[in-house]
Amino acid sequence: MSVFQVQDPHYEARVRNTFAGQAALATLGITLVGIGPGTVELRMPYDATLSQQNGFLHGGVISTGLDTACGLASYTLMPANADILTVEFKINLLAPARGQTFRFVGNVIKPGRTLVVSEGRAYANDDGREKLIASISATMMTMVSRS
Amino acid sequence: MSVFQVQDPHYEARVRNTFAGQAALATLGITLVGIGPGTVELRMPYDATLSQQNGFLHGGVISTGLDTACGLASYTLMPANADILTVEFKINLLAPARGQTFRFVGNVIKPGRTLVVSEGRAYANDDGREKLIASISATMMTMVSRS
Amino acid sequence: MSVFQVQDPHYEARVRNTFAGQAALATLGITLVGIGPGTVELRMPYDATLSQQNGFLHGGVISTGLDTACGLASYTLMPANADILTVEFKINLLAPARGQTFRFVGNVIKPGRTLVVSEGRAYANDDGREKLIASISATMMTMVSRS
Amino acid sequence: MSVFQVQDPHYEARVRNTFAGQAALATLGITLVGIGPGTVELRMPYDATLSQQNGFLHGGVISTGLDTACGLASYTLMPANADILTVEFKINLLAPARGQTFRFVGNVIKPGRTLVVSEGRAYANDDGREKLIASISATMMTMVSRS
Repeated sequence: MSVFQVQDPHYEARVRNTFAGQAALATLGITLVGIGPGTVELRMPYDATLSQQNGFLHGGVISTGLDTACGLASYTLMPANADILTVEFKINLLAPARGQTFRFVGNVIKPGRTLVVSEGRAYANDDGREKLIASISATMMTMVSRS
Repeated sequence: MSVFQVQDPHYEARVRNTFAGQAALATLGITLVGIGPGTVELRMPYDATLSQQNGFLHGGVISTGLDTACGLASYTLMPANADILTVEFKINLLAPARGQTFRFVGNVIKPGRTLVVSEGRAYANDDGREKLIASISATMMTMVSRS
Repeated sequence: MSVFQVQDPHYEARVRNTFAGQAALATLGITLVGIGPGTVELRMPYDATLSQQNGFLHGGVISTGLDTACGLASYTLMPANADILTVEFKINLLAPARGQTFRFVGNVIKPGRTLVVSEGRAYANDDGREKLIASISATMMTMVSRS
Repeated sequence: MSVFQVQDPHYEARVRNTFAGQAALATLGITLVGIGPGTVELRMPYDATLSQQNGFLHGGVISTGLDTACGLASYTLMPANADILTVEFKINLLAPARGQTFRFVGNVIKPGRTLVVSEGRAYANDDGREKLIASISATMMTMVSRS
């Protein structure tokens, strides 16, 4: 894993602030458990009201966790006055999302002035055994207000 | 748009049943408004508890709508005894998800025995004006129970 | 299909010039057969020296055609002084690339100041019958020199 | 990196044979320099006849290298009688493909009976300094002849 330099020494507070501003994350039960330069880790418990037809966590919820993990990981490397926008992401669902808790990890692979590219993994913890359930590749955009 | 032949004359009931079995969709307020051979349309109202940091609908929620629209569109063409699995999808977020209602459309572009490929669009209706906000390209897998 | 306004009235000459500057395209036998605002069409004949293990056109060559069709389609809408960069693309290979000639079509779905998003299709013409063989979803970036 | 078990003890000969059968790879100057369970490495020299408008290696050629590296990496884990098909891949171009030699690495992240998911990296070596220029996420399909 590459080591990245942050531009904003207060990046952690900025990331936590953006996280807290996303109502969807609290609604889905997603919490922020780790932040570092170019990396973020989120977790959530299983919630039967967020399942698909077989009772597993819905792929869209996994996407929300992965998109957010990659977005915040990218945001750690952006300047202090930047907002962030998801340009695109691609997700592979690798195994059924069966488990009691879920973990979403995002890691920057290429920071740029305008675009930041990242990858991530989702894991399910099922009775104490962790399993890779999804992967993401994402592009985020730095939006700097012109005022 | 191509015209596709269904394998299961009761595909509509089957799709509605799978839709109803996905608790996440009811939780997010997503409803099924249209079904045809290889195509499905979903809608949802804006919900402030599902927003990102600028108050727009969260990209993960848009992904849930698009993944589901493409999944169900693909499912219309699968055999009567099939279950469905999302293999992968890629989403481009094209404009801020600002609006009072949202529409998700999925269309099959290539049905296959094992894999079905589809594309979709998400639209926001903001004060009566509809705007394209996201696109998806997805691969779904037909799972036929071996019993 | 949306109708797009070009920023540069001389876009066609600019696109032809960029096409001509890409040595790889001449090497692979790809030709430019159609240009319009937000759309480009390319063609190439089958070439056994560009095949994969079953004698069909290699997926990487199809990718080259699709990436280029989407890139040039996006480039039609960029300003006169812009260069273009592929940010990312996702390709689904839908059917074996069996045929005597191939056609690659790119269409912009969302032009933006910095990023342009497009979709495309590859078709094989096999004994006079055309078949969809691949789809692409792509993001291109406008690079304006700062001098 | 996970360690994977091969199903076919003669996988290396099988991979080399498939590589040799792909005429496009010889045409583009791509060589096979490393094989292991779930991993493959390819190389190619810069070739001005395969460049884009700024003289860098064309993105489509990089895609060919990455698609092939991921395809062969996936193929190492398939059964002896399997053929392989690319289902889809997504590529992010991360930096200009400027250099004298290029390296493409593919690694399986999830082997499955029908589908194998992999990721990869492309690197350019420019005056002895290696730089990450592209990433891929890919899905391959195992095709077992029914005869």
